[in-house]
Amino acid sequence: MNFLEKRIKKDGKVLSEHVLKVDSFLNHQIDPNLMLEIGKEFAERFANDGVTKIVTIESSGIAPAVMAGLFLKVPVVFARKRKSLTLNGDLLTASVHSFTKNETNEISISKKYVNKEDRVLIIDDFLANGQAALGLVEIVQQSGAKVKGIGIVIEKSFQQGAQILTKQGLRVESIARIASLDNGEVTFINEKVEELV
Amino acid sequence: MNFLEKRIKKDGKVLSEHVLKVDSFLNHQIDPNLMLEIGKEFAERFANDGVTKIVTIESSGIAPAVMAGLFLKVPVVFARKRKSLTLNGDLLTASVHSFTKNETNEISISKKYVNKEDRVLIIDDFLANGQAALGLVEIVQQSGAKVKGIGIVIEKSFQQGAQILTKQGLRVESIARIASLDNGEVTFINEKVEELV
Repeated sequence: MNFLEKRIKKDGKVLSEHVLKVDSFLNHQIDPNLMLEIGKEFAERFANDGVTKIVTIESSGIAPAVMAGLFLKVPVVFARKRKSLTLNGDLLTASVHSFTKNETNEISISKKYVNKEDRVLIIDDFLANGQAALGLVEIVQQSGAKVKGIGIVIEKSFQQGAQILTKQGLRVESIARIASLDNGEVTFINEKVEELV
Repeated sequence: MNFLEKRIKKDGKVLSEHVLKVDSFLNHQIDPNLMLEIGKEFAERFANDGVTKIVTIESSGIAPAVMAGLFLKVPVVFARKRKSLTLNGDLLTASVHSFTKNETNEISISKKYVNKEDRVLIIDDFLANGQAALGLVEIVQQSGAKVKGIGIVIEKSFQQGAQILTKQGLRVESIARIASLDNGEVTFINEKVEELV
């Protein structure tokens, strides 16, 4: 298990076979030092990809994305979940349905901050069915920029997201990959492999 | 001028006598290195206050708050702007009206993450009329925790917020303090003083 998987085992709460709660260190209360480690890990994995910009989505993507930006020395742009009155100018937009919250949001970024010269790393906290990541890919591609990869803090590998993105030729790098949440327990992909060896 | 004031002069856009746009480095595109400097500055100003927790509000408060948390070695809790379906348990809530967006939001944090033993530093990106900061003070005080101070990235000193908070006995530390946005130009409080000397 890596540093994040250990933390999930220690502090994550399995609420059902589909829901893992990590609001004590990732998406409500945030552990800044863990975010630093996560940012460093993303930066190492994408160190040779010529990334010029990171794109994420409010709110829980911001902390890991900013730390990755710190190590990769590139700016971070966060997509907003609806059109803000103070964001003027032309926007790139996509629709994203959240099954967790059972709602559809328009997500948007300003055209000013991503353009066709950019090589973009997309970062988000969770990957489940892939809807948010697909929305981010869509707006980045609208700008003409190239998506160099998708960095995910926690992937629920038992849902479709990673497969859908990979089939589109996108590179997905997830720091923790959850094979199952059955029986109130978190099992990681690597753990299963380790058991088999 | 300090590092942030210089950056505002360089990259901020004055849209009117009341609106300063800093979405190229703070609240849409984020400069991670600037956030690090801001976090360090907050940590220095509150180094001797025994801060145990930072409370901020999504989304633009998160990056500076997490960097401050990194230096102060304390967790960060961000208030959400409406009740999330995946946030279970008891919530501390307050109503906050945004004049910029012309809407009222319920902001909330989980009772689990702030309690009466905590000494809280509140951090936000902007201080204008003080509504968001007052909402955050309200939910922190509901928990029984002590508010040790309010760290603000950019204070519009020509609006009422700082005064209202200070009158309540709260310590406000703003890294950039804007005296006016008249004539399409940013003038800082310190600049005015420097002119007089």
